[in-house]
Amino acid sequence: MPMTKTVRVELGERSYDVRIGSGLLAELGETVVAAGNVSRVVIISDTTVTGLYSHVVGRSLEDAGQPATLIHFPAGEANKNLQTAESIFDRLFAIRPAIDRNCMIVALGGGVAGDMAGFVAATALRGLRWLQCPTSLLADVDASVGGKTGVDHSAGKNLIGAFHQPGGVLIDVKTLRSLPDRELRSGLAECVKHGMIRDATLLDFLADNADAIRSHDPDVLTELIARNVAIKAAVVSADERESGVRAHLNFGHTVGHGIEAFLGYGQVTHGHAVGLGMVAACHIAACKGLIDSSVKARLEEVLQRLGLETRWEGLDPGIIWQIMQHDKKASGGRVRFVLPTSLGQVDIFDDVTEIDVHAAIRELDSPQ
Amino acid sequence: MPMTKTVRVELGERSYDVRIGSGLLAELGETVVAAGNVSRVVIISDTTVTGLYSHVVGRSLEDAGQPATLIHFPAGEANKNLQTAESIFDRLFAIRPAIDRNCMIVALGGGVAGDMAGFVAATALRGLRWLQCPTSLLADVDASVGGKTGVDHSAGKNLIGAFHQPGGVLIDVKTLRSLPDRELRSGLAECVKHGMIRDATLLDFLADNADAIRSHDPDVLTELIARNVAIKAAVVSADERESGVRAHLNFGHTVGHGIEAFLGYGQVTHGHAVGLGMVAACHIAACKGLIDSSVKARLEEVLQRLGLETRWEGLDPGIIWQIMQHDKKASGGRVRFVLPTSLGQVDIFDDVTEIDVHAAIRELDSPQ
Repeated sequence: MPMTKTVRVELGERSYDVRIGSGLLAELGETVVAAGNVSRVVIISDTTVTGLYSHVVGRSLEDAGQPATLIHFPAGEANKNLQTAESIFDRLFAIRPAIDRNCMIVALGGGVAGDMAGFVAATALRGLRWLQCPTSLLADVDASVGGKTGVDHSAGKNLIGAFHQPGGVLIDVKTLRSLPDRELRSGLAECVKHGMIRDATLLDFLADNADAIRSHDPDVLTELIARNVAIKAAVVSADERESGVRAHLNFGHTVGHGIEAFLGYGQVTHGHAVGLGMVAACHIAACKGLIDSSVKARLEEVLQRLGLETRWEGLDPGIIWQIMQHDKKASGGRVRFVLPTSLGQVDIFDDVTEIDVHAAIRELDSPQ
Repeated sequence: MPMTKTVRVELGERSYDVRIGSGLLAELGETVVAAGNVSRVVIISDTTVTGLYSHVVGRSLEDAGQPATLIHFPAGEANKNLQTAESIFDRLFAIRPAIDRNCMIVALGGGVAGDMAGFVAATALRGLRWLQCPTSLLADVDASVGGKTGVDHSAGKNLIGAFHQPGGVLIDVKTLRSLPDRELRSGLAECVKHGMIRDATLLDFLADNADAIRSHDPDVLTELIARNVAIKAAVVSADERESGVRAHLNFGHTVGHGIEAFLGYGQVTHGHAVGLGMVAACHIAACKGLIDSSVKARLEEVLQRLGLETRWEGLDPGIIWQIMQHDKKASGGRVRFVLPTSLGQVDIFDDVTEIDVHAAIRELDSPQ
């Protein structure tokens, strides 16, 4: 019998449970029925994920006697926009009998499907209940906690959206088998980040179980995801609307976003770029005397064990710095930096200079 | 010195003040500055209202040293849709320097501008602060309290939206001078509704001050709006997300919506239709023995004093009943009716039949 874990996300009246285990998608029907008084389930998913999992999900809802409708949209970040949302609304409001406030949205898929389905749930009839069923490791450990929903605008990512907490999250680790290895590694970078900001023992777990993780051992994946969800949940509980410590989750993301945009979205996974961003942040912290060299060494060791890069050739510090200035989290021309103060701890600094960042990016470009 | 009144809307950490008085639009600049840390004001308004008030509002913000941008969209309910929202987002995200989370939206206009600007505020950067400056009596006494925002979809009104409480509301009664008389009367029907559901003495105030109201006496309008905002605020405070007593605000709306749709939106004002709906609800309540005939007589008397209809020729009970069945508030094929139990009190009933409704609509069609 495979292990199942439950992590509670404490957000007052918006609290909810994240359940993690192997084969949980087959329990979707029971989960919906347990939520109570659901008039209809509308599954929102992308074309790729629909092909893989609509059968098991549809069967589970049918067995539970739950009326359900599937709406899918073309996979890919390029389709995460208001036009796609509109076409989903058209199909949602064409359902007969017409949906009411007891309709429940199920978001089935990776980050894009979760953001899109969550946005529709946040805004259809001024807010419907929704359940998240993430199918990528990145969505499992990151997007499944926090209630961020949204779509992109040509001026930037996630510019249109809402905070809308789900009623629950169901993480089926079996779905990770269908995930390309580079996407798995991308999610692992966020796990490393959680270790770096809150829990050095998670770094040990990642290093010790690297092979089991990459060969999809269900119990190890369940344990891994549960630990990460718990860390993210603690951060989000302390700061639901992102005004304080939630900024710690941006560790590695300031330079990471710059690298991602410099190389071109899709050319490098989000997680790989964040991994490089974390290495850069450690370099800056070491130069400022915040940490000794062992912290950066341990980070690099864990990243390498997980198949993530710690060096990248051809990065242009000047261009990356310029991109960082345009990042929406930059404010008043000054970039707020999350830097490590020891293994498993970070703090926010606003005195990181262009010179510091240039040096850190040049370091990424040099042989280890 | 004209009177100014302030009504607090109590919603925990989302509480805010509604200020009512003559000439308050000229104080917008100070109000924004007092809110603190506003990087930029973006006024969202429709073409009609922009022409009337952008000068006074722009001047006030300039005097307060507050950077501001005006975005306007074509007036009219027909433009309250996702396409218009998208064109507003395009202009919002084209502002340079780019807007950040300290941007504040100002909704300037009637119900449509408020719903639209509020929806943009609810979803831009996952939620911006916003200030409501309603310019119609209906928006003053209804939309200014409750945080409902949204746009229409071809399948129905307000199907896409969010609950997003404003940081404050500024009601300048001077703006009512530019309001067509039929729109003023439309707003007065909602005031009558508030009296009918919570406060019989408000009905006396309306009847006694009908002439002063219709000739735009600023102090009488200030007093009137403050009393109505206080009633709506009490109802919304008790039930922010519309799961219980907030349904009382639907008094007159069940049949009223049916009449509005039967006659065609724009052929009758919302308020006039609600007035007729309230008369119908009183007829049903009287037939069920909930009230004696004096309640309906007093309602009709007040409506007439305010220039509102209490009878309408050519209504088709069968068609109106069908429309009511499609109303989104209908659930499970049964219409939940708000009926008076005495002057100033209502309750919710789910045993109103098609026969009851037919009889009430036929009554509207008969001579007084």
